[in-house]
Amino acid sequence: MTYALRTTVDQPFARTLDATRTALGENGFGVLTEVDLADVLRTRTGAKIPPQVILGACRPPLALAAVRVEPSIGLLLPCNVVVRALADGETLVEVIDPAVMVTLTANPDLEDVALDARERLTAALVSLDGTLMEPGSASAGG
Amino acid sequence: MTYALRTTVDQPFARTLDATRTALGENGFGVLTEVDLADVLRTRTGAKIPPQVILGACRPPLALAAVRVEPSIGLLLPCNVVVRALADGETLVEVIDPAVMVTLTANPDLEDVALDARERLTAALVSLDGTLMEPGSASAGG
Repeated sequence: MTYALRTTVDQPFARTLDATRTALGENGFGVLTEVDLADVLRTRTGAKIPPQVILGACRPPLALAAVRVEPSIGLLLPCNVVVRALADGETLVEVIDPAVMVTLTANPDLEDVALDARERLTAALVSLDGTLMEPGSASAGG
Repeated sequence: MTYALRTTVDQPFARTLDATRTALGENGFGVLTEVDLADVLRTRTGAKIPPQVILGACRPPLALAAVRVEPSIGLLLPCNVVVRALADGETLVEVIDPAVMVTLTANPDLEDVALDARERLTAALVSLDGTLMEPGSASAGG
């Protein structure tokens, strides 16, 4: 089962994180939550992982439509978007595949909502790639 | 497929929300995020739904173990815990079943982590029920 939509961006982490927030906004999603997972793990366990931030993205009209047909859908909201640094200076941006909402709930009434969310999140990933893959602008780190 | 663990508490919403935060803490989970979904939907769409808050619960050692065996697991973190008011003055507390992590990723290396998280979250729900189901203390609203 696929659970992620993803794109690899040839840009450093911090710049990609900013670009991801912008791309989500331009595709109708607000960011309701933000977890710096690398910081949480370093602070609480002492372990060091590469930079990784989890954004909780929500398009309120879609969330409302989902709640109306599946009262427990809050368990799968907001849609997680994870930005994490790769070893080679590139950055991976992953989005939970909204189709998972339909699979886990087995509720076909969520199909339209999931499809709409999937199209918008895919557009955000595509735009991100297009925005950032400028020739000669790649750099490592972040 | 089951995706939720849940308990119904015969206490008002606000009190149950506080008790849920406490129960999570007592079972080793921190709350990293908090989304007042009813407020978000009212503000952004004008729609009114019963009180509902989504807590993002995380036990850092478990999150670290999960990241090490499934690099994209951030898409399913933190574990959502939803507290929502029911029509009859009771409050429903739902937790995403951590077994979903194994199902969605098809990664058996997550089984121990998911089982540990499931036991702790179940204990939190059970304690919540035990704490709040005091005879004669039920009240509507919140």
